[in-house]
Amino acid sequence: MEFSRRDFLMRVGQAGGYSAAFVAMQGLGLMPARAEGLVTHESLGAAPGSGAGVKVVILGGGIAGLVAAYEMRQLGYTVTVLEARERPGGRNWTVRGGDKIKFVDGTTQTCSFDEGNYQNVGPARLPSIHPNILAYCKKLGVQLEVEVNTTRSSFLQNDNANGGKPVVQRQAINDTRGHVSELLSKAMSGGSLDSEMSKDDKDRMLAFLRLYGPLDQAGKYNGSDRSGYLETAGAGDQTGVLSKPIDMHTLLDESFWQGMLFEEQFDMQATMFQPLGGMDRIPYAFAKSLGDIVQYSSPVSEIRKTAKGVKIGYMQGGSAKQIEADYCICAMPLTILKKTPNDFSAPYKKVIEESVYANAYKVAWESRRFWEQDYNIYGGLEFVNVGCSPIWFPSAKIFSERGVVVSGYTDETSSPFGKLTIPEKFEESRKSIERLHPGHGKELEKPIYVGWQRIPYNEGSWIRSYGPPAGDGPGRGARAGGPSDPTAPRPVSPGYETLIQPDGPIFFAGCHVSHIVAWQEGATLSSLRAVKLISERVKAAKLATTASSIVSA
Amino acid sequence: MEFSRRDFLMRVGQAGGYSAAFVAMQGLGLMPARAEGLVTHESLGAAPGSGAGVKVVILGGGIAGLVAAYEMRQLGYTVTVLEARERPGGRNWTVRGGDKIKFVDGTTQTCSFDEGNYQNVGPARLPSIHPNILAYCKKLGVQLEVEVNTTRSSFLQNDNANGGKPVVQRQAINDTRGHVSELLSKAMSGGSLDSEMSKDDKDRMLAFLRLYGPLDQAGKYNGSDRSGYLETAGAGDQTGVLSKPIDMHTLLDESFWQGMLFEEQFDMQATMFQPLGGMDRIPYAFAKSLGDIVQYSSPVSEIRKTAKGVKIGYMQGGSAKQIEADYCICAMPLTILKKTPNDFSAPYKKVIEESVYANAYKVAWESRRFWEQDYNIYGGLEFVNVGCSPIWFPSAKIFSERGVVVSGYTDETSSPFGKLTIPEKFEESRKSIERLHPGHGKELEKPIYVGWQRIPYNEGSWIRSYGPPAGDGPGRGARAGGPSDPTAPRPVSPGYETLIQPDGPIFFAGCHVSHIVAWQEGATLSSLRAVKLISERVKAAKLATTASSIVSA
Repeated sequence: MEFSRRDFLMRVGQAGGYSAAFVAMQGLGLMPARAEGLVTHESLGAAPGSGAGVKVVILGGGIAGLVAAYEMRQLGYTVTVLEARERPGGRNWTVRGGDKIKFVDGTTQTCSFDEGNYQNVGPARLPSIHPNILAYCKKLGVQLEVEVNTTRSSFLQNDNANGGKPVVQRQAINDTRGHVSELLSKAMSGGSLDSEMSKDDKDRMLAFLRLYGPLDQAGKYNGSDRSGYLETAGAGDQTGVLSKPIDMHTLLDESFWQGMLFEEQFDMQATMFQPLGGMDRIPYAFAKSLGDIVQYSSPVSEIRKTAKGVKIGYMQGGSAKQIEADYCICAMPLTILKKTPNDFSAPYKKVIEESVYANAYKVAWESRRFWEQDYNIYGGLEFVNVGCSPIWFPSAKIFSERGVVVSGYTDETSSPFGKLTIPEKFEESRKSIERLHPGHGKELEKPIYVGWQRIPYNEGSWIRSYGPPAGDGPGRGARAGGPSDPTAPRPVSPGYETLIQPDGPIFFAGCHVSHIVAWQEGATLSSLRAVKLISERVKAAKLATTASSIVSA
Repeated sequence: MEFSRRDFLMRVGQAGGYSAAFVAMQGLGLMPARAEGLVTHESLGAAPGSGAGVKVVILGGGIAGLVAAYEMRQLGYTVTVLEARERPGGRNWTVRGGDKIKFVDGTTQTCSFDEGNYQNVGPARLPSIHPNILAYCKKLGVQLEVEVNTTRSSFLQNDNANGGKPVVQRQAINDTRGHVSELLSKAMSGGSLDSEMSKDDKDRMLAFLRLYGPLDQAGKYNGSDRSGYLETAGAGDQTGVLSKPIDMHTLLDESFWQGMLFEEQFDMQATMFQPLGGMDRIPYAFAKSLGDIVQYSSPVSEIRKTAKGVKIGYMQGGSAKQIEADYCICAMPLTILKKTPNDFSAPYKKVIEESVYANAYKVAWESRRFWEQDYNIYGGLEFVNVGCSPIWFPSAKIFSERGVVVSGYTDETSSPFGKLTIPEKFEESRKSIERLHPGHGKELEKPIYVGWQRIPYNEGSWIRSYGPPAGDGPGRGARAGGPSDPTAPRPVSPGYETLIQPDGPIFFAGCHVSHIVAWQEGATLSSLRAVKLISERVKAAKLATTASSIVSA
């Protein structure tokens, strides 16, 4: 398989779900941000009970739909959620032993993981800078544990660098800093930046580089303990031998850079969390609270506007049913809306039709925890430049005998991987583990492959484009920009601007109606916004009714 | 309080327990290291049952003593551990509500933390590159959880920089890399390093710096999402506003450098662990396994050599007692050995006498988790340049209502802090929290202060010097070197070289008999080494006996 440099940039970004260019979230300059009780009647602009007598139907029981239902019920609305599947959560899906993975073409896999093992095949991380979804975890009693998104003990590998031999991340990261520091120290000592800074700042910078590198007194990088040891040391006369620095030329390889900087993406930075026992603890906790508000196995077949609001057709128990409501929150993927008969106005039909979704996949395996037992790697990710990447080690049940490891999590659209059969995909996935940890590919068992484009009721992982841009720039795709210039002005996407406005009584929700695509926080915020907009409209309608009754009295 | 630059270097090192210069541990180039089953009969060079009929007395029931007892019993030795306290663990001490902290001068504090809260006042981290102590946790069923040693959301603060305003670490770390990258890019573009590298490497380096910084196409650093956001963004039309980069001059302040690089020290790197419920789960698990092999409340009063081995005097239940054995593993602190009548040979008496111990302390408070609830900080450390540092947030029971936070953990020897009364220390400690999180100092309650020099049976935290060096260099103090040139040859310390050899039937153990001072892994390895040395001697003695019986037959 061949990937362009651009593909690599994208692949690393995709590992987390979306590009740095479109992330826009909880500001953390130094302003206190409250991680609990974020949502209040005040923040929603709605009085308790203000929804009494108003009916709302919510399409889709993913995180967006569940959050909307939870808050609208609190406000007194009469709420129904129509969910196509027999479970809540949408893409928030945890696969365990016995679970079936069915594709749109009928292909079915049955997971055979051991009891207690699982894979979050959709979202698998909760960044601490996503306070709203964290607040719901707290409110609903979902117990969280640390998700280890970074470890210095995991590897990077590139067939074309270092003779294909993996490099441990502590060495790549720290030797790179060392070489950069040495070069700058050398340039500055030669006077090349004397016109740029004061003598005092120059001296401070040179002193800083000695620590930053670290460099010796002559300004040379000779390696350091930060990069690790070649030989174990311990008690008595057993001293250690430091690793020899990797030469700069090797470290300049592009795929090493990518892996090294992954952890610095805003939404990938420590501290990260995951629910104990699986990400689906969140939707199940919502579902428990909502009870029969959520109607399962009820796929939407028709979305119509009426004089009073909406009329939604759906299937249930083999029969066609209908529900009428004053308002609708539509939290279905645009991929599915495309195929659902509807009354949307022309601009909405256009963006839905023109939208393009990514097709992220994950391949996960059960195995003896060779990464822990043989390599001291506990959680974290590894990156290779060819084939399936990243490798993602479990943070669940660390130190137990067996665990589930991901080998391959990216967008397979237009990639050679996308064209492989499932058994071929498994062999590609196994190869990456073998590249990084020779001899261990054969320890991988019980693989599962989830390609979101092939999953019924999703047919895509997350939005990549809202259609053509207004100007000459790229569309407002989740990955339209790149991390290299995140401050550059973003091109306007008419499709996005349309979707964030209600189409009459219908309000769109889901991470695609937020700047935090492919994260549960985006879905959450989009729903809170929809709830607020509906509440405002309900309040206005009541005022109008009161006014007209006064006039007619 | 005033600290020299050197003090800051040391303080950061000490926060972890020892200097990078003397760390020498599990090599992780890319050689598989097994995290379990490390200790075997083979690795100890001893056959099962080889200790039958041989008596060993172990002085001190800290981690070193417990590991030695555990392994020697496995080999069939008759083992007794004499422990001065009523609990196992030594410096591995977890303080909970109701516990008393007694100083040598009689001063007593009673901890009043809420049920379930605790502070590990000794070791509080288990690095994943310390496989031996981790293997014992696994073997003994001690459940571990991730210790969050790094978070990008915590702060750095310096009264003399940035107007004293704290800086969030994601910004300090990422803006620093940005500025360094921009400077190097500028220097290279100006041709200043053209003689140093090929045209190809230069081009690659310039491209690399655009990603590393990240820099724009013109080579300028304009900030990035890695440094975080000033204004929250979210759903709909709510876009975010990136933080403005901090200027380079501010970032050049030395105390910022320290905090930023803390996480890159080999033994501070992710992934780190802690036992669920407190570090003392480890010694209690050993103690449970060892049963009445460990004699508590039995301080050693005399260490004598005999014709056959050793005779140890100790106190128990108010009476003077004695125990004889063939061998002795002496795992008491040198501070206490200094005051214990003994028969050590002259070189051992000398190093014991001349050794100098550090006096680390911790101040810990219970509080509402304002760091989590108001700042999205979960675990991790913060650093200030004046007063108590670091601040260390708990990894235990994240998301619960109240937790225990450390404000101040360093060596107070010869520091102004060392001269303060306990109430004054508490006020100093509170001030650091107030500097970093204004308004929250008053939320701190129920402080405890543990200064290890004042704790009976320790009278010091860890060894700092083994006495005068052989040459002109500094002594082999645990902190004699610095991180700036860890590859420089280390000065020989005659004291250390003495201590790692047995004095007749007496073998020394403890982290001071290792290159991993102030870590449980060092204590563990020192004991495994002592067990091995004793086993070899026992084997040799048996061979000699057999030989002589054959001769006399």
